[in-house]
Amino acid sequence: MQLMEEKILAEGQILPGGILKVGSFLNQQIDTDFLRAMGQEIARLFSGSGVTKILTIEASGIAIAAAAAMELGVPMLFAKTDRTTNVDGSVCSTVVRSFTHGTDYTVVVSRDYLRPEDTVLLVDDFLANGAALRGLVALCEQAGAAVAGAAIAIEKAFQGGGDTLRRSGVRVESLAVIESMEDGKLSFRH
Amino acid sequence: MQLMEEKILAEGQILPGGILKVGSFLNQQIDTDFLRAMGQEIARLFSGSGVTKILTIEASGIAIAAAAAMELGVPMLFAKTDRTTNVDGSVCSTVVRSFTHGTDYTVVVSRDYLRPEDTVLLVDDFLANGAALRGLVALCEQAGAAVAGAAIAIEKAFQGGGDTLRRSGVRVESLAVIESMEDGKLSFRH
Repeated sequence: MQLMEEKILAEGQILPGGILKVGSFLNQQIDTDFLRAMGQEIARLFSGSGVTKILTIEASGIAIAAAAAMELGVPMLFAKTDRTTNVDGSVCSTVVRSFTHGTDYTVVVSRDYLRPEDTVLLVDDFLANGAALRGLVALCEQAGAAVAGAAIAIEKAFQGGGDTLRRSGVRVESLAVIESMEDGKLSFRH
Repeated sequence: MQLMEEKILAEGQILPGGILKVGSFLNQQIDTDFLRAMGQEIARLFSGSGVTKILTIEASGIAIAAAAAMELGVPMLFAKTDRTTNVDGSVCSTVVRSFTHGTDYTVVVSRDYLRPEDTVLLVDDFLANGAALRGLVALCEQAGAAVAGAAIAIEKAFQGGGDTLRRSGVRVESLAVIESMEDGKLSFRH
């Protein structure tokens, strides 16, 4: 998606440790015209895939998931990162290791909403090592739901998670794929 | 908002301790036609208020904030509940006490995005004692931004936070206001 690459080049900041800061347009502040454009592009990529639900993980994927779900006309689900008083009954859950924060956390979704008859599109803002996305795939497997694929705003290909998931048979569509970020210089995969 | 009251009556579950479970349509699964309707209603209520940005708090207010921001055509901001590697530089921050979880947490927003020239609409899914919303008001005060008001999906009036905020001069518009939930029976304020 040309617009995503332009936004990254114009507004992204590369920080030490392979961190790309995109707070101005993606994960702290979101331009709503851009949000709608992301939703439309994701809907275009997965139209005809029989998607019945979008699943994301709180918190930063929610806005993109909502925009895509509105375009596709399907409900969105968000997996919670803790078992709170608001998630009870029978659940699917798995443990995700956050490389950013160096911690493990549990993601949970109710079996009331993630159903064996669902075909699920996974949506998230970033794909790096793929831990969060593998967690969402695991939730779908537990529920017996089919996975149509994953739509990601920004993939850091050099961290390998996206290609590992593709090799395992998951269709991964990223609106921008960063091949390298060395020496403060970005290069995209096309 | 008639539709919100109907959804609550049809799908909400009252749990012990004054908890209203609305996971089927609001905070685990979101019906996207309903999400768009919420966005439109919030935009109708605050059109003409000069709103330049919507501010919410991660995670469960994000989808509603995104829908409202798309209708109003303004950017959305989300306050983060931790100071992570992705929020740096000069920030506004305040401590919020969660009555649900019995813990304190810090909410943070970058001063790069919340500006003195902004007129901010606060959006969240629930308003009970008002701690989270007071936190968002405090962030705006720190930034020197004006507060146009707050748009809430469901207010539990019997927990008092909404009326306290109204008395302090904040315009609070809730799509449904629950006056009482005693003995498993809901009554709405109109």
